[in-house]
Amino acid sequence: MQTELEVIPLDRLKSVFDKETIIDKVKEAYISHAEGKVNSPAPGQLLFDGRKGDCHIKFGHVIEAPYFAIKIASGHYDNPKIGLPVNSGLVIVMSAKTGRPVTILADEGWITSWRTAAAGCLAARSMLPSNLDAVGMIGSGHQAGLQLEWVSPFLDTKKVIVWNVDKFKAEAEVFVSELNQKGFDARFADNSQELTEKCRLIYTTTPSTQALFDSSHIKPGTHIVALGADSPGKQELDTEVFGRASKIATDDHKQCLDHGDFGNAVRAGKVSENGDVKFGDILSGKIQGRTSDEEITIVDLTGIPALDIAMATLFCERLGIQ
Amino acid sequence: MQTELEVIPLDRLKSVFDKETIIDKVKEAYISHAEGKVNSPAPGQLLFDGRKGDCHIKFGHVIEAPYFAIKIASGHYDNPKIGLPVNSGLVIVMSAKTGRPVTILADEGWITSWRTAAAGCLAARSMLPSNLDAVGMIGSGHQAGLQLEWVSPFLDTKKVIVWNVDKFKAEAEVFVSELNQKGFDARFADNSQELTEKCRLIYTTTPSTQALFDSSHIKPGTHIVALGADSPGKQELDTEVFGRASKIATDDHKQCLDHGDFGNAVRAGKVSENGDVKFGDILSGKIQGRTSDEEITIVDLTGIPALDIAMATLFCERLGIQ
Repeated sequence: MQTELEVIPLDRLKSVFDKETIIDKVKEAYISHAEGKVNSPAPGQLLFDGRKGDCHIKFGHVIEAPYFAIKIASGHYDNPKIGLPVNSGLVIVMSAKTGRPVTILADEGWITSWRTAAAGCLAARSMLPSNLDAVGMIGSGHQAGLQLEWVSPFLDTKKVIVWNVDKFKAEAEVFVSELNQKGFDARFADNSQELTEKCRLIYTTTPSTQALFDSSHIKPGTHIVALGADSPGKQELDTEVFGRASKIATDDHKQCLDHGDFGNAVRAGKVSENGDVKFGDILSGKIQGRTSDEEITIVDLTGIPALDIAMATLFCERLGIQ
Repeated sequence: MQTELEVIPLDRLKSVFDKETIIDKVKEAYISHAEGKVNSPAPGQLLFDGRKGDCHIKFGHVIEAPYFAIKIASGHYDNPKIGLPVNSGLVIVMSAKTGRPVTILADEGWITSWRTAAAGCLAARSMLPSNLDAVGMIGSGHQAGLQLEWVSPFLDTKKVIVWNVDKFKAEAEVFVSELNQKGFDARFADNSQELTEKCRLIYTTTPSTQALFDSSHIKPGTHIVALGADSPGKQELDTEVFGRASKIATDDHKQCLDHGDFGNAVRAGKVSENGDVKFGDILSGKIQGRTSDEEITIVDLTGIPALDIAMATLFCERLGIQ
């Protein structure tokens, strides 16, 4: 028996795309994951040429769902030198009933980009302090731009302060200029202290392997959304800040211990291994998030298969694929 | 940038297919794996509906190779009830340089079938005793037939004795009749003792979760190729036979400890954890296999990504895909 397997190109995915639904589906996926309804073994990872390239393979099945999904997402950081985007990939949608492939979403890495933008948007809003004057963005790449674009409709401020390490300063200055063209009131900070002192919402979106700020410069009332550290060896947050936080939410406890900034802080003895709560439980309201404008709060996201399955299912529904 | 991603259907794969080359490439892959030249993290596995369905995701990269591969292979054991084959799947070939998908081999599980047939053929021949009168086949499914078909040109006997558990007795009788139509001299054994006593080459190719024979019925000089146990909880071999074997080869030490019959024997205390040698080292001649016709020898195969990468690379070469 011959499979007629369709490859859905990126432009068809983009044509059925709306941010509000993706945010809703990603929220549901976090809640399902927190409730133990997702069978998702530890993701696979391949590293190439030192750390110049990586490929993450995430797969899982929402219990009783008709499909399961295998998402392949790669990042090859020297691609721009040959005129190619850093990210690529595809998502294989399979039938849970027969094990046969249903369709291939040739998303070129965009499903990861979109669901991560939705995830960051939910994370930012989950424990936002009331007195937000400016958003701090540590990082200036593809995902930094998406985060601001997706969260902006939900914020009362257009002020953005951007900082990045010297190596990426030129990229960051271009990024600031692009943000201003898009209607943000953005500027580049000379150092991370300037950013941390002025911003009560801070995103970190870099591939860093060391802390990007000093915890002593983080003001009370700050909410941190840590997105960059998604594999062992990466680090963005000063581990000290975990000791000061009144609430630490992780997308997956075990994965954040292995891959995330939370794990770095646990290993450094700054927070206990059970010092986190499930991000899905914050989203569902089962656990209360921020209780005052003086608290420091952190959401550590490493990326979980539940989100990719939710995205695959959404696109299949929208495209009428059965 | 839009990917134009081609899906190669099974009939095109079949059109460029020859057993000799596959056997050669699989042999090279085992040797590369034994030499540590393959970066292949632990495969992923999803189980559905108890154990009625499973999906194995194997991925890896042969160091410095232009491609890497992600192989998705599923088995849904109730599929025949709705007129579908048990096995399905596909192989994604990716560029190691850019992380972009190169092609999709819609093999419907056949790449796994072929490379497993080649693997079993190499395993059988690697430590074959000289006095082979009949081949014993425990199991009567798809892979049992392929094993006999692939190894037959290398053996001096056409005699096959088949045995399977009561549940599959009807299937096994059909299998025996088909073997005879194909020129084998096959018959069904009433019990496994009858098979083990008459056969000096024994394959096990079942999804069993318990021993299928009694070690005391295995005669000196028997070579066992264990193919069925490929995930935790499965078992085909009586653990006692490992204590009697003078050589135990595993395709991957750690994986066979977790997934294979070797692991069952280690946990039962019948063999030490370092009681195995690398199958690739037997194939390369680095380690000597059988030294006399009195020894019991075992090859425990659980399936390694190196084989799938080799197959993907071979098909890409044959199809002129770059």
